[in-house]
Amino acid sequence: MNLGLHRAMGEAAAQVKEALDLLLPKAEGLEKPLFDAMRHGALSGGKRLRPFLVLTTADMFGVARECSLRTAAALECVHCFSLIHDDLPAMDNAETRRGKPSVHKAFGEATAILAGDALLTFAFEILAHPDTHGDAAVRCRLIEKLAAAVGARGMIAGQVLDLAGENQTLDAATLSRMERLKTGQLIGFACEAGALLGHASDTQRRDLRAFAGDMGLAFQIVDDLLDFEGNPELMGKGVGQDASSGKSTFVSTQGAEMARKQAEMLTAQAIGHLRGFDARADLLRETARFVLERKS
Amino acid sequence: MNLGLHRAMGEAAAQVKEALDLLLPKAEGLEKPLFDAMRHGALSGGKRLRPFLVLTTADMFGVARECSLRTAAALECVHCFSLIHDDLPAMDNAETRRGKPSVHKAFGEATAILAGDALLTFAFEILAHPDTHGDAAVRCRLIEKLAAAVGARGMIAGQVLDLAGENQTLDAATLSRMERLKTGQLIGFACEAGALLGHASDTQRRDLRAFAGDMGLAFQIVDDLLDFEGNPELMGKGVGQDASSGKSTFVSTQGAEMARKQAEMLTAQAIGHLRGFDARADLLRETARFVLERKS
Repeated sequence: MNLGLHRAMGEAAAQVKEALDLLLPKAEGLEKPLFDAMRHGALSGGKRLRPFLVLTTADMFGVARECSLRTAAALECVHCFSLIHDDLPAMDNAETRRGKPSVHKAFGEATAILAGDALLTFAFEILAHPDTHGDAAVRCRLIEKLAAAVGARGMIAGQVLDLAGENQTLDAATLSRMERLKTGQLIGFACEAGALLGHASDTQRRDLRAFAGDMGLAFQIVDDLLDFEGNPELMGKGVGQDASSGKSTFVSTQGAEMARKQAEMLTAQAIGHLRGFDARADLLRETARFVLERKS
Repeated sequence: MNLGLHRAMGEAAAQVKEALDLLLPKAEGLEKPLFDAMRHGALSGGKRLRPFLVLTTADMFGVARECSLRTAAALECVHCFSLIHDDLPAMDNAETRRGKPSVHKAFGEATAILAGDALLTFAFEILAHPDTHGDAAVRCRLIEKLAAAVGARGMIAGQVLDLAGENQTLDAATLSRMERLKTGQLIGFACEAGALLGHASDTQRRDLRAFAGDMGLAFQIVDDLLDFEGNPELMGKGVGQDASSGKSTFVSTQGAEMARKQAEMLTAQAIGHLRGFDARADLLRETARFVLERKS
């Protein structure tokens, strides 16, 4: 991994964690289990790829860090909400997440559902606040875009397709659509948000979203490859879970070799969308290469 | 029930249902169960008290019906999200709602969780859209206020207290706090939203919120009374459920007679908050009386 990228990702992760720690409510009274569950779900680490993409894209347009950090924190709340709900017994029934008990394992199912609901809600509260951007029209566009990325035609539709794939084999086209919804929408929003905060041109905004779409799909294919052939110690979770659950993945539909080739092709395509940007976009180019080459 | 109020509530319910029907996604492809579940949860009726309050309050300030209707529809999405999640097996485990199978009974638990998530998300998407109000700053305030009303210090905190009350007896003060959060926050937002849409003064906005707070608590006390002594045929659901589940209610903590008196006192207090408004607020006054006297 490129050292500059390594440092930038580490810095972004630390800053977003600090921002979330300040923004999230602190334990008190009878609400303590709810607040603790929200914090468990939002502060337990992970790569913080989405916040990093918000900050990096916003930096390309000279956005104040205070604004991009709030936007990044809001997006991370949504991502963590989705993980909490995806892990529930009725969904993927995951007992661990990032090497720790999943939220429903640690706090019970009812509290996990509510903590997810509260994190999702909190994201919109953060974005609507004047501190996120001086122009209310920009805040509204962020909210509209985020809601569209999450909702019934976005990430949540992707989860529905994912669950449908447990009972039937999804063809490659449906699988791509599922992943472009389930993972791609939030990654797409991450890059678009930076452009919106920075009053980028429509062309720039669309190029960044296209970059994120292809890079996000490559990200998911690599996830499937890591589940198939990865190192459980590096992953912080079990591997081989997809195959044992009979889930359709990019590896199960076309084999590991073709999946790897597809990820490489998508990465090149993603980087191609950045041709209109100069060296400002180098960190994004590095990110796409990292997503392809990562081992966890 | 006052005939003018009866007609106004019926009209509001029909208009909001029509708006939701137009706004919500229609069944298609693999997402069909999700879209159907959202529609089942949002279009199955109910009194539509919250949307009615948005429309009625907005009318006091001459707000265009298109704007108040979108706001009312957004709020109803949130209310229906909360019912879907509250009914889940991990929460209240309710098999029916408004005389029909609850969403998880009809569509399964995973789809119910996701349909709730999608409705909650959709509310913010509706509010952020320029059609809801020409001034983006007003839209942002609506979103901030709604998110605060729903989130970890609002309705969701109320549900946490409610669940805590299943394992321990709540005292009267905690019970009031719980209900002011669980039911009162959304009812409060309903009246405040009309004021925000209509650029009301801060005093007017606060008076309307205070009205809604007291009226909402009276509403909940009457709910408990109806569960204790109501007619199951009028209610469209079982009665006596609170007592058999051992839940703390206003009736269990102080008895039916005192609960009835408290509801009467709160209703008078609610109407008192409207003293700064002329006959424009008569429908709200009627609503407070109706909430007290209703039989279902």
